[in-house]
Amino acid sequence: MTQDPRPPLPSAARTVFFVSDGTGITAETFGHSVLTQFDLRFRQIRLPFIDTMDKAYEAARKINEAFAADGQRPIIFSTLVKNDLSAVIRKSSGMHMDLIQTFVAPLEQELGVMSTHTIGRSHNIVDSEEYKNRIEAINYSLAHDDGQSHKNLSSADVILVGVSRSGKTPTSLYLAMQYGIKAANYPLIPDDFERDKLPSALLEFKNKIFGLSITPERLSEIRNERRAGSKYAAIENCRYEVNEAEKMMKREGIRWLSSTTKSIEEISTTILQEIKPNRREY
Amino acid sequence: MTQDPRPPLPSAARTVFFVSDGTGITAETFGHSVLTQFDLRFRQIRLPFIDTMDKAYEAARKINEAFAADGQRPIIFSTLVKNDLSAVIRKSSGMHMDLIQTFVAPLEQELGVMSTHTIGRSHNIVDSEEYKNRIEAINYSLAHDDGQSHKNLSSADVILVGVSRSGKTPTSLYLAMQYGIKAANYPLIPDDFERDKLPSALLEFKNKIFGLSITPERLSEIRNERRAGSKYAAIENCRYEVNEAEKMMKREGIRWLSSTTKSIEEISTTILQEIKPNRREY
Repeated sequence: MTQDPRPPLPSAARTVFFVSDGTGITAETFGHSVLTQFDLRFRQIRLPFIDTMDKAYEAARKINEAFAADGQRPIIFSTLVKNDLSAVIRKSSGMHMDLIQTFVAPLEQELGVMSTHTIGRSHNIVDSEEYKNRIEAINYSLAHDDGQSHKNLSSADVILVGVSRSGKTPTSLYLAMQYGIKAANYPLIPDDFERDKLPSALLEFKNKIFGLSITPERLSEIRNERRAGSKYAAIENCRYEVNEAEKMMKREGIRWLSSTTKSIEEISTTILQEIKPNRREY
Repeated sequence: MTQDPRPPLPSAARTVFFVSDGTGITAETFGHSVLTQFDLRFRQIRLPFIDTMDKAYEAARKINEAFAADGQRPIIFSTLVKNDLSAVIRKSSGMHMDLIQTFVAPLEQELGVMSTHTIGRSHNIVDSEEYKNRIEAINYSLAHDDGQSHKNLSSADVILVGVSRSGKTPTSLYLAMQYGIKAANYPLIPDDFERDKLPSALLEFKNKIFGLSITPERLSEIRNERRAGSKYAAIENCRYEVNEAEKMMKREGIRWLSSTTKSIEEISTTILQEIKPNRREY
């Protein structure tokens, strides 16, 4: 959380509220997707856990205050499941984008059943199989980060390989956290290139290996941030390692992608499509 | 990703598609929130990276096939920014919930500017400050997991404390990954209780400490999954540790919450509200 390097927000910037009876993560993620379609900047405020009428009135008050301060209608993305809470926000002075109501009503008609109007997935989520799987996967991925443990590689859903700093660790953690995927990761190091062989612990799991590569230029940049001026970060060394790693992956028939311009979300989505684990049903 | 313990999906289950020009994470997260309002089960298929007309036609073909196979309209949640791609999906046989079009058009009117209709946040995301902060925070949180390093605690945004297995590690990683928060975490162990003092490395950072507690029963359950029958997992020991930790946090004036029935998303959101870092603007 370093300081925002951009110039201060223009005083005419709109205020955006993300209002939810749960964490507000859905409202915020979705709101961001929509707002990035506009070449404007926004002042954003998250109002999570709005699950009583009192809190809803308090939220509406904050929205009305922003209107008074800005002289412009605030924009509201809300995911309030209960109609009475949602109605309070709807009566505020903001422009209300009600994500639930907008889509639940037509779905009730299409599916021929009424929605349960319970509050979110948040209740009992901790006891759900899906949640337990995610936590178990996070622990697994941490214990199998950077080739730390050879134990239980047979229970990995995927084993990421690649040179140091090609993006394996954050990708493994994201796969675990978002999808409950047990992702081990294993560095490809100069020793492996000299022996010209995959690390021996991996040989029997070749079918679940997925490779990450990266351009030598980008790799050198990233490594220089950690160890400026080192041989490890030198462009020639990065060229050598990347070249050897790619050669090895090609020869071994390992699927791989370049992480150079991809976010961990994009890398993870691609891996998921490739390894095609059985899709969760719910 | 252990096997789904639930009975097989009823053959009458609807198929749901999440269609996106990016990762599809927004469409899927949002779709889940809406679908959990219904006491039904769905067969779900993610179609990410639909960013050309060819891919859009291919997606529409899959949707039409699901209609033919199920005998019921599939449900589609889409976040396709480009009109021409979206139009292809709209003409398929599914029930199309177009998240972008539904909200972008009214926002264009409200904001008095046209949307840029560029594809998502995905392009250049890797070069954005926000993305770099997130990756830096993940590295920071990993390096400062479980009291591993006392170095640079001054750059932590928050330091989580609590007994072993109270949820510190997954919460730290989630705060880093989702919000770019540098979250260190530090265990409170029997040594600390005997000395009756916070770990000395933490004393100067008391203002950014946040505590996690948990009921002894739940803690014992979690610890037994890892070390069945150990003293570590025994209920009496868990009662002792939790009691001592809570006493210490109260005495030191440390804010804390119980993680017993809370997901890492809920814990993180609560911490974020408490430590109130300057809100990102964008």
